[in-house]
Amino acid sequence: MSDAVPASVEIVDVGPRDGLQMEPEVLATATKIEFVTRLVDAGIRRLEVASFVNPKRVPQMADAEAVVAGLPRRDDVTYIGLILNQRGFERALACGIDEVGFVVVASDTFNRRNQGVSTDDSIAAWHAIAAAARAAGVRANVTISTAFGCPFEGEIAEDQVVRIATELAQSDPVEIAIADTVGVGVPAQVSSMIERLRGTLPDMPLRCHFHNTRNTGIANAHAALLAGASTLDASTGGIGGCPFAPAATGNIPTEDLLYMLDRSRVETGVSLQGIIDTGAWLQDQLGRPVPSMLTKAGPFPPIGDAA
Amino acid sequence: MSDAVPASVEIVDVGPRDGLQMEPEVLATATKIEFVTRLVDAGIRRLEVASFVNPKRVPQMADAEAVVAGLPRRDDVTYIGLILNQRGFERALACGIDEVGFVVVASDTFNRRNQGVSTDDSIAAWHAIAAAARAAGVRANVTISTAFGCPFEGEIAEDQVVRIATELAQSDPVEIAIADTVGVGVPAQVSSMIERLRGTLPDMPLRCHFHNTRNTGIANAHAALLAGASTLDASTGGIGGCPFAPAATGNIPTEDLLYMLDRSRVETGVSLQGIIDTGAWLQDQLGRPVPSMLTKAGPFPPIGDAA
Repeated sequence: MSDAVPASVEIVDVGPRDGLQMEPEVLATATKIEFVTRLVDAGIRRLEVASFVNPKRVPQMADAEAVVAGLPRRDDVTYIGLILNQRGFERALACGIDEVGFVVVASDTFNRRNQGVSTDDSIAAWHAIAAAARAAGVRANVTISTAFGCPFEGEIAEDQVVRIATELAQSDPVEIAIADTVGVGVPAQVSSMIERLRGTLPDMPLRCHFHNTRNTGIANAHAALLAGASTLDASTGGIGGCPFAPAATGNIPTEDLLYMLDRSRVETGVSLQGIIDTGAWLQDQLGRPVPSMLTKAGPFPPIGDAA
Repeated sequence: MSDAVPASVEIVDVGPRDGLQMEPEVLATATKIEFVTRLVDAGIRRLEVASFVNPKRVPQMADAEAVVAGLPRRDDVTYIGLILNQRGFERALACGIDEVGFVVVASDTFNRRNQGVSTDDSIAAWHAIAAAARAAGVRANVTISTAFGCPFEGEIAEDQVVRIATELAQSDPVEIAIADTVGVGVPAQVSSMIERLRGTLPDMPLRCHFHNTRNTGIANAHAALLAGASTLDASTGGIGGCPFAPAATGNIPTEDLLYMLDRSRVETGVSLQGIIDTGAWLQDQLGRPVPSMLTKAGPFPPIGDAA
């Protein structure tokens, strides 16, 4: 076994937020709460649970307050709520979220389409949100979306991502995440990006968010691990693909990531069998197969049988 | 972009052999010939085209001689035929194959089930085949199957694979391939295995054969590339999963591997669009979706638009 992988890494499960938000079904509030509870029971200790965004635009997340109100509260679990503006921040704060996650898109075109303002305006909004979060005693992280490519602008220069990260870092996020929002990145790009960011911001924890749209998601996660990312996003079942392209997978599946990490002797504190069971449960809730491959193939060697 | 990836790598397309052999449909001889021709037109220069095995056990390959007879002959293309014994070697030789591929299974249990003899007996058979191939002026390669794990024996010790490789190397194959036959390997394991083999057999070219059964196939290919493998197997469309588990994918898809390589600036001489088109054609021949993800998601940036 190579010595190059770190001894441990943190997994953030984004299934209840980034996953469900992209699925056509709207699950009942109680089902969402059960999903989060199952993830916590499987050992997930930090996870995205809701988006505090316009319910007209994202009906899947309209019950964000009710979901948060119903979650099991534990000192060792951090619940993250996605916000895109001050209104969302206030909603998240009002229902007692542990951490807010803000998003700035590296592509100005994508930022304007998704957030209605320029990338620079979103950077300015981040500074205001970060200050408000600090005043309220709430953790705040920030994600740079489309960091590896944009469907509208095409290639995104590494320099552009590093410039944005440097500006975002001034407001002291708990971490900066780089997101391959449309699933176009490759491992060499991931390694290079993380090395650049670690060189520029040596004390900033880096989280990585990959989609498996072009089959590079797990390879990118492995590259990020080797390059020094401290946290990897994944979604149980691999939910979160575009609902209008049934075959296109979304986030990297937590169970598939965990299989790779377990077999590489990288500690996560998460139970592979617990996540596989949760993915199977989720499949039943959605009424159709989820993209994760461990759901179909099962672990190796059979759990309980590992050397 | 990281400097760690090599400037180029060879891709061997195994779709017409390892791919079609595992699919329930038996394609017409003319369709198989068209498949190979399309791969060659897309830039593939070395590929598995048939198995010379018992047609009662593998009806998909019963027309091996007719397929080889109908292939376009080019000086710059190497056609490989799989053989498991002397009888197969003689059939392959009789129809003018360029290269034979022999298989030894690292797991003795799997070797006995698949080949009917012990692993040590298969090693002895390899030495005889290699001598006969040399006498006939035919190239010969040898694959170590279940190198990363066996469904019957579980974990396979790295020492066992290195011992087998060292014995096989005595008969001077054109290369030794290590195959993750059941799709259980992870990148850390691949890196470690290749480093060990390169240390023990520094002059032996190494080919790697990965299955994407547990979503680690492209990550494993990337690890193999970094560790110094000279050749990577893949199958256009990603065909070759177990026909009785429709959701379980088989070989890593050539188009998905090629996307990763192209975006990493690793030269292969193969056209991504040509392979995507061939995968779409293959999908029509099989009458159902193939597992490759580039077939669905398409390249990035759109071909013709790359920087």
